[in-house]
Amino acid sequence: MKNQVTTTHSYNAQHSPAGAFFSFTCGKFGSQGGIAAESGGPANQDIHIGYKVGKPSDPGQLMCLPFFEGADSDEAARFDVEKESNSDKPISVRAIEPKLIGRDYQLLQDVWQTGPMTLSIHTPCPSIPDPEFATTQELRKALRPAVTSTLTLDNSKNDQPMTLVFSMAFGHGAAKIHDGLGDKRVGFSILQTMGLAFELADENACLTPFQHFTVESGLAAKAQPVFGLGGTIGVFVTVEAGQKTQLNIALASYNSAIATTGIESRYYYTRLFANLTDVLNDALDHIDEPLAIDPAYQQAYDKLTSQQQWLIAHATHSYFGSTQLMDVAGKPYWIVNEGEYCMINTLDLSVDHLFFELKQNPWVVRNVLDRFLEHYSYFDEVTLPGTDETWPGGISFTHDQGVFNNFTPKGTSSYEVTEEPGCFSHMTQEQLCNWSLMAASYVSQTNDQNWLQANRHVILACLQSMLNRDHHDPAKRTGVMQFDSSRCGKMGQEITTYDSLDHSLAQSRNNLYIAIKGWATYLGLAMLLGELGEAMSNEAEAAAKRAAATVIKQVQPDGTLPAVFEAQNPGHVSRILPAIEGLVYPMHWGKSGQAVLDANGPFAELRKVLKTHTQTLLNSGKNHFPDGGIRLSSTSANSWLSKISIFQHVANRLFEIDTTSSDASHINWLTGEQSSYFAMSDQFVDGVAKGSKYYPRIVTNWLWLD
Amino acid sequence: MKNQVTTTHSYNAQHSPAGAFFSFTCGKFGSQGGIAAESGGPANQDIHIGYKVGKPSDPGQLMCLPFFEGADSDEAARFDVEKESNSDKPISVRAIEPKLIGRDYQLLQDVWQTGPMTLSIHTPCPSIPDPEFATTQELRKALRPAVTSTLTLDNSKNDQPMTLVFSMAFGHGAAKIHDGLGDKRVGFSILQTMGLAFELADENACLTPFQHFTVESGLAAKAQPVFGLGGTIGVFVTVEAGQKTQLNIALASYNSAIATTGIESRYYYTRLFANLTDVLNDALDHIDEPLAIDPAYQQAYDKLTSQQQWLIAHATHSYFGSTQLMDVAGKPYWIVNEGEYCMINTLDLSVDHLFFELKQNPWVVRNVLDRFLEHYSYFDEVTLPGTDETWPGGISFTHDQGVFNNFTPKGTSSYEVTEEPGCFSHMTQEQLCNWSLMAASYVSQTNDQNWLQANRHVILACLQSMLNRDHHDPAKRTGVMQFDSSRCGKMGQEITTYDSLDHSLAQSRNNLYIAIKGWATYLGLAMLLGELGEAMSNEAEAAAKRAAATVIKQVQPDGTLPAVFEAQNPGHVSRILPAIEGLVYPMHWGKSGQAVLDANGPFAELRKVLKTHTQTLLNSGKNHFPDGGIRLSSTSANSWLSKISIFQHVANRLFEIDTTSSDASHINWLTGEQSSYFAMSDQFVDGVAKGSKYYPRIVTNWLWLD
Repeated sequence: MKNQVTTTHSYNAQHSPAGAFFSFTCGKFGSQGGIAAESGGPANQDIHIGYKVGKPSDPGQLMCLPFFEGADSDEAARFDVEKESNSDKPISVRAIEPKLIGRDYQLLQDVWQTGPMTLSIHTPCPSIPDPEFATTQELRKALRPAVTSTLTLDNSKNDQPMTLVFSMAFGHGAAKIHDGLGDKRVGFSILQTMGLAFELADENACLTPFQHFTVESGLAAKAQPVFGLGGTIGVFVTVEAGQKTQLNIALASYNSAIATTGIESRYYYTRLFANLTDVLNDALDHIDEPLAIDPAYQQAYDKLTSQQQWLIAHATHSYFGSTQLMDVAGKPYWIVNEGEYCMINTLDLSVDHLFFELKQNPWVVRNVLDRFLEHYSYFDEVTLPGTDETWPGGISFTHDQGVFNNFTPKGTSSYEVTEEPGCFSHMTQEQLCNWSLMAASYVSQTNDQNWLQANRHVILACLQSMLNRDHHDPAKRTGVMQFDSSRCGKMGQEITTYDSLDHSLAQSRNNLYIAIKGWATYLGLAMLLGELGEAMSNEAEAAAKRAAATVIKQVQPDGTLPAVFEAQNPGHVSRILPAIEGLVYPMHWGKSGQAVLDANGPFAELRKVLKTHTQTLLNSGKNHFPDGGIRLSSTSANSWLSKISIFQHVANRLFEIDTTSSDASHINWLTGEQSSYFAMSDQFVDGVAKGSKYYPRIVTNWLWLD
Repeated sequence: MKNQVTTTHSYNAQHSPAGAFFSFTCGKFGSQGGIAAESGGPANQDIHIGYKVGKPSDPGQLMCLPFFEGADSDEAARFDVEKESNSDKPISVRAIEPKLIGRDYQLLQDVWQTGPMTLSIHTPCPSIPDPEFATTQELRKALRPAVTSTLTLDNSKNDQPMTLVFSMAFGHGAAKIHDGLGDKRVGFSILQTMGLAFELADENACLTPFQHFTVESGLAAKAQPVFGLGGTIGVFVTVEAGQKTQLNIALASYNSAIATTGIESRYYYTRLFANLTDVLNDALDHIDEPLAIDPAYQQAYDKLTSQQQWLIAHATHSYFGSTQLMDVAGKPYWIVNEGEYCMINTLDLSVDHLFFELKQNPWVVRNVLDRFLEHYSYFDEVTLPGTDETWPGGISFTHDQGVFNNFTPKGTSSYEVTEEPGCFSHMTQEQLCNWSLMAASYVSQTNDQNWLQANRHVILACLQSMLNRDHHDPAKRTGVMQFDSSRCGKMGQEITTYDSLDHSLAQSRNNLYIAIKGWATYLGLAMLLGELGEAMSNEAEAAAKRAAATVIKQVQPDGTLPAVFEAQNPGHVSRILPAIEGLVYPMHWGKSGQAVLDANGPFAELRKVLKTHTQTLLNSGKNHFPDGGIRLSSTSANSWLSKISIFQHVANRLFEIDTTSSDASHINWLTGEQSSYFAMSDQFVDGVAKGSKYYPRIVTNWLWLD
């Protein structure tokens, strides 16, 4: 097969429609997968996709792709056909040997080829039109909660009939659909919320649905293949000698209930599809329509290295698996759940998804901004840890909007806790930056002046809040956050999204990453306020200059910058590559951003300092793992692919530092035996996925298509 | 405590509202339990109900009822307070020693008392009014999908404050309810389909909700007890020295979705309650209303032995846990799910639930009869196994209506398979008997002449079908089934509900149990046809006489009857007590039934034969287990409590044979270490629950209240 990017084909991938919080997951040999909705990890069905010589109930071995538990347990014995031929089990399942399996893993498809059998999974990457302006047909296409696949068996070279099988084991809750599917189609509903449907491309061939204890007993059950108490469902078809057969497969989700608490909502697709069979029929009706992305992005994608293409494909698949478009009182509510943690719209992820979403469907960025403002903004005061005195703070936004389909009350998140000295403290400063940067990027890319005008007061409030978090006394402002939110309480202090990457980086005050992000925030607010004709624009720009000056002062003799500025802080010895993360935003702001980033512009020195910092760290080896993978913090074995992707983009495009030689290592991390079950993960400790598994955030690598 | 019926208090019980397929299960020491909807077994939450000396966050031991995993792991060390007092864990959970725990287990309550703490679980046993005629308020009361409980802590004798805690660990999906609960009430929703709410009886006391990683960390989290990412939820309250506190608790289910496939339906309670908080508020509003059953039944219950009372209570609790009232297009659809198997309205269970349901809510019997007729009746032909020739058959009914909320297509069940030589074959003859006997009993008890008139053609069709299954040649009829349904195919033969009790009894043809059930069916049809003025009534009575004669001819020299009449059949040596099961129906038919059963009536000889059969078997010891429990079949170690209960009733009331001395053994079976996790089970092999666990059918013991 074409794709030789990975050293193994054994890794799970999520195949997911947009907005349904539903995935068909498979690919890791010897492990279960299948279909699941509203789950922070892979489904738990044994999948049997295979073929055998002879008619369905004839004795023999069903040769299956190794997508079931135990399929990798005894590799040597697995293909030992002779020894088993006298077995008293007339039909037995055998896993096909890995070396006989090919896989072509791409953005829009995942193709498995072995012997005469080919499984093509179609992986959508839709651009979702704004529901306010789109037709129902457009929305049905973009938001159909289904994934399709074709399975072919080529028996043209044999002189015996063969049997092709597609099957999944659910344990309980499966039932044959006996009403509503199109002619010649068969299917099953699963636990009232999911379903599968099948049809043959050749209308004259005969497809047999089965439901039985096992796939073996289903094939053997001549008289009545559908037995309601069976936990294993599927279909089989006899392919006569000299013939070729194509099985079309739809895997779908449909939840008709009120699916969330706190803010009650239903899935938006319930406005578009009447029920499960409507979805399944629609999916099969359109199975031949080729999937595509915007031609401009496709062109850019085609120019990338095959490693980059693979990483983007893998990231995109897991992004969609976490997406959820809900209907709240008739209006769309966009959600990206936080992978295995299932937190709703974690804002420090939203700001990372921004680059992808502005390319694909900018209205969801506006939707997230509006929902945060409406439900998840708050006003605080600021203080210093361990003290009682407070000063005016300002507007900010919560870390997230809830967890596992439960929205938190207005102005609160599921994550942030008061009086918490470590992880789970507040991220008030960073979330203020995140919302502001999203707003600036959204307006810059879409020129949505209506939205900007309507949010004039918010943009002004964001600037005031930024300034107050620096210092209430203008004379003492450094451009960098000096005070914590009063929400932290006396024992707590503000943390950043890197809370779990390196404990020394958790502090938000005097933090290099936050300083540059704050610098970008000031510039974004300056740009928006300038467009609004607000004089405060100058104030914002002045603050950005203060921030730049503060950072520059921190340059150490070797040319690098400490992660935390306070000399006595453990983070002072840390060296972090995400120092340059904040530069990615102005890179998205057209002319205004270009001016900021100009090598001879107002921030030329900051740019130079950051480039030297980056170059020095990369040359030193401190910020690489032994395998060549990128280490975000010199003092941590923990590194995150989403943030690495941003770093690589800025380093490459702004500083002309090529880091693509690390991509192969990152692919090895993802496809490593201990990590590959979780599809796309973010947090790797010494190259092994230890957290943020099954994760959407790595779609930051769509920056590479810029 | 009062109840000394059981040798241990460690056994699970289901506490369930009517029609919600929802249970709060607890009571087995060292195992999980809690709340679950649509489950064939206990929930899987650790439950912490306990108290500690001091304020909530003070160091100390939280003494809990042992309703969590590991609570029984080290009994000796458990109460060794001294050794642990210097522990570095400021708050720790300890399981209270079993010997310090009292339990009073009754029909309408389950009371746990230990030291200063008392937990009273209120277990409803409602009579459900016919929705066609009832008011919404009546229905809300009967069908409220909630269970309530009170938890009191008496600190009147101490001079220190104490803390009272109620907590459950869900892992994920829990969220504090921040809208909709009444003043001073707090609560949590669980996975969008369940919830808990709490309030203090004393409005001035202060109740604190918490959500945290564990109950210990929740108590310790002074600043913010509600942390959205925590999987453990609950409440705590400080009880000052000299005070006593009562915590009111509601545990509820609310599923707003289309909950079934095949026949689409929602829970009927969604017509009565707006949402989860409506249910929780209503439950707390009415927590002081005493639960009751019809005074006549209460009087009868009070006259029973304490063993009988315990068995009825335990059976009733598990019955309601399996019930489900659905709304299909505005009309109620009554379902009893089959315990751990979750089959929908298994008809051979429905006919057993009849006696309870006719006492409590006769309309559900009509509902089941109508739904079987409308969706799950069919016409077949009859044949002999291994032959091709067929003859006219007639109407019958499916074994069940589907499984796990998936309705099967019209005229088919999830269980019955064609060409199946053993278990999972068809039960055509028995289900025809079951429907007919239900119809006869329903009309006899309710005198619903409208229903009878409307079903005249069905009653006639049932008789014709009975006769055809005996023999197409009237001259060759024996009154007992001789032909199998063509649905069995060539390899299969009809089986009975006892399919898994004793393989030798699985055959339906020439089966003693079926012969007597068929005899009763003919008499029931004769009664109905007589009321309808149909001449065929005589034909039915004549068939009953043929059946009686056939059975009488089988009497062996020792006075007993073979289970299967064919001398070469392995069942010929089996001796079964359910020979007399069929007599229970005429016992329910008023004067008509009395005439049939009269010791000097038309069936005096049959009655005598069956009494001798029973008496002989009981005296012989063949049909007892070594512990004194009743063995339904002399050739099987498998025995079923539901059928034992019917047998005991007939033996006692008709033959004046007292079997109550076996009740203590049956209670020991249920409360045995290997069985007691599953609340009420039916199938016991040598006194250990091996199947039909968490089962509704044992409510047959309400016969004892007649």
